[in-house]
Amino acid sequence: MKGMILVMDGMGDRPIKELKNKTPLQAANTPNMDKMAKDGITGIMDSIAPGIRPGSDTAHLSILGYDPYEVYTGRGPFEASGVGLDVIPGDIAFRCNFSTMDDEGIVTDRRAGRVREGTKDLVDVLNTMVIEGYEDIKIIFKESTGHRAVLILRGEGLSGKVSDADPKVENKKPAVVKGLDGSAEAEKTADLLNKIVYKTYEMIKDHPVNLERIKNNLPPANVVIPRGAGEVPDVEAINDKYEVNSACIAETGLIMGIGRFAGMDVIEMEDVTGGVDTNLENIRDTIVDQVKNSSHDFFLINIDGADEAGHDGNFKEKLSFIEKVDKVVMSELLKLEDVYIFLTADHSTPISVKNHSADPVPVLIRGPEVRVDDVSEYNEIAVARGGLSRIRGADVMNIMMDLMNYAHKFGA
Amino acid sequence: MKGMILVMDGMGDRPIKELKNKTPLQAANTPNMDKMAKDGITGIMDSIAPGIRPGSDTAHLSILGYDPYEVYTGRGPFEASGVGLDVIPGDIAFRCNFSTMDDEGIVTDRRAGRVREGTKDLVDVLNTMVIEGYEDIKIIFKESTGHRAVLILRGEGLSGKVSDADPKVENKKPAVVKGLDGSAEAEKTADLLNKIVYKTYEMIKDHPVNLERIKNNLPPANVVIPRGAGEVPDVEAINDKYEVNSACIAETGLIMGIGRFAGMDVIEMEDVTGGVDTNLENIRDTIVDQVKNSSHDFFLINIDGADEAGHDGNFKEKLSFIEKVDKVVMSELLKLEDVYIFLTADHSTPISVKNHSADPVPVLIRGPEVRVDDVSEYNEIAVARGGLSRIRGADVMNIMMDLMNYAHKFGA
Repeated sequence: MKGMILVMDGMGDRPIKELKNKTPLQAANTPNMDKMAKDGITGIMDSIAPGIRPGSDTAHLSILGYDPYEVYTGRGPFEASGVGLDVIPGDIAFRCNFSTMDDEGIVTDRRAGRVREGTKDLVDVLNTMVIEGYEDIKIIFKESTGHRAVLILRGEGLSGKVSDADPKVENKKPAVVKGLDGSAEAEKTADLLNKIVYKTYEMIKDHPVNLERIKNNLPPANVVIPRGAGEVPDVEAINDKYEVNSACIAETGLIMGIGRFAGMDVIEMEDVTGGVDTNLENIRDTIVDQVKNSSHDFFLINIDGADEAGHDGNFKEKLSFIEKVDKVVMSELLKLEDVYIFLTADHSTPISVKNHSADPVPVLIRGPEVRVDDVSEYNEIAVARGGLSRIRGADVMNIMMDLMNYAHKFGA
Repeated sequence: MKGMILVMDGMGDRPIKELKNKTPLQAANTPNMDKMAKDGITGIMDSIAPGIRPGSDTAHLSILGYDPYEVYTGRGPFEASGVGLDVIPGDIAFRCNFSTMDDEGIVTDRRAGRVREGTKDLVDVLNTMVIEGYEDIKIIFKESTGHRAVLILRGEGLSGKVSDADPKVENKKPAVVKGLDGSAEAEKTADLLNKIVYKTYEMIKDHPVNLERIKNNLPPANVVIPRGAGEVPDVEAINDKYEVNSACIAETGLIMGIGRFAGMDVIEMEDVTGGVDTNLENIRDTIVDQVKNSSHDFFLINIDGADEAGHDGNFKEKLSFIEKVDKVVMSELLKLEDVYIFLTADHSTPISVKNHSADPVPVLIRGPEVRVDDVSEYNEIAVARGGLSRIRGADVMNIMMDLMNYAHKFGA
């Protein structure tokens, strides 16, 4: 028996006037998801708890059975996993921007003109960095998409309880990083980080990549500014905790990072963008191939486009992306046998909010032995009458393991 | 006002093909339970939490308002209570088998030919046991049904964190008991237990009961092998916690043990087996008599047969036992006035799983002042639309005390 949690990122929504007070999912023509609802059991879910607005990261952590209040120490560690850095418990990780700083130390462009090329070359130089007095600390940079990068500090006596170097607005100096809890570890980490910021400028301001940018009238990517500090937590791998052989199929670094954090195999896909223009055929073929031909028996799958349309406040795009996923992906998943499919969103991203909300998400479980209820449509309103009633993200793995008969009895 | 929690052990199930995708409870003809649903309020319940597969013991603890993660320290203490031993907090209790061991210390039959008679005589001898160096520890044996027994160690400096002496398979020596947490208490308990195992052999191998068995070509019950160590926890009696005068009406030692653990009066019944062949008339008469004529105002009642049929994977037997309970027991309970009846299962025991699952159980409350919903059938599917929505075992006592007006206001 195999199982998958299929997350339609940000799919949940609120009633929209232009859609005659229907949600995009409700208004969309989704015969395949409706069939799953008809054959399955449905309900609503709070990824974390009622009224708590989840991030995609904290929602996925919760759905995978980790308590986000315990393990989510900041975005840095998950971004770092997401770009493929092998982080280890105790590492302090940061999200970074390549930015543009002038001679007087003023940040004139936080995103260095949204630099797209050459950051890997800059990182190669930065990774030779040694800070005087901190020779025992390993300093690891890794470029991400566009102007983004991550930084890891590895060594003894460090702390994730430090403030951001990001000045948040332009035309200010980088913020002075401070320890947040008065500990010696935080003070040490803050001091080191302040030195690293200026050291990056020193090391790459005259790098050929930047000289070329200046020649082309582009803002040079001449400083790296960290934020979102977090200590990489030590957690039990999902394969050990639930005795599964799991894989993560996702488009974005953030979700791949969650997968790596949970010890899942991360399946790489070509040509996926995390937007409404993504290659759904590739995603579908990857899922079907993995379910049919791999030794993996449990999957976390994330399709990101609906969330992007929600953030953009574009209900037409959200609706048509949902229809496209139904047509291209769900139609084929319906044909899979002996697979439990837990279909959900990680959170709502209402058109009106243009960001995540805490409205519960619609869920369904389709599979051989579920207690089929009388709900025959998959949308936020219809499933609220379903047989699962209202559950939480923290329940998902346990419910799936029970249905798949991987669960153990507590007691006699 | 009186109240009862009536647990149909293991009654919940999953849809079964042979029953046209109905559950046994759904397919069964149960006019009396359906009448209770019609007159009452219904819902689904997770005895512990969604997706957690409960044992009967942990489920009942939870339903009685105890946190099983806190008080469930192993099966030993509940078995010991179940056979009527007065256990006290701090006692270390074990489940035991009378087994057969040969001259070379090999366990040749873990159940001593499923010995049925004479174990009380063997226990009388064993209870004179004193182990050199452990003279301050009280060693108490008590026979249970068949080859089963319990052992209690009472004294200072002991621990329940020890492994089993049970070799699990035949033709091996008893397993060497080890401390599990490195503590001096666990090491001491393990050492004592290893000595007890061989001492039982020494004391009863030539007992007349065994000489007679050998003469009759039966495997002698010449050694006692403990497992399932647990320290008896110190909990508040249910009568004190909820200001009730409670009684437990149950068929099996395990549930009677839970009742004793909670400080309930345990009502003995004749002729009950815990199986589908039990004497339901006796159970019914005991319930009716207790409700009408005793000073008890709160009852935990357990009827075990549906669970047995579930473990056997026999859907016909499960269905017909449910119908029999409805006809014999529920018909009379319907006539009781001024009683709140909380009808539930402790867990599902699906025919397909042949063991406990975490599928939520159907619940109903029938009584003078419940908010009657529009559900008029008692089964897993119908009640999921009920007015109680989805509750947990830990809620049951509080809900009942509120309806019975025994509850106190928290705040002003």
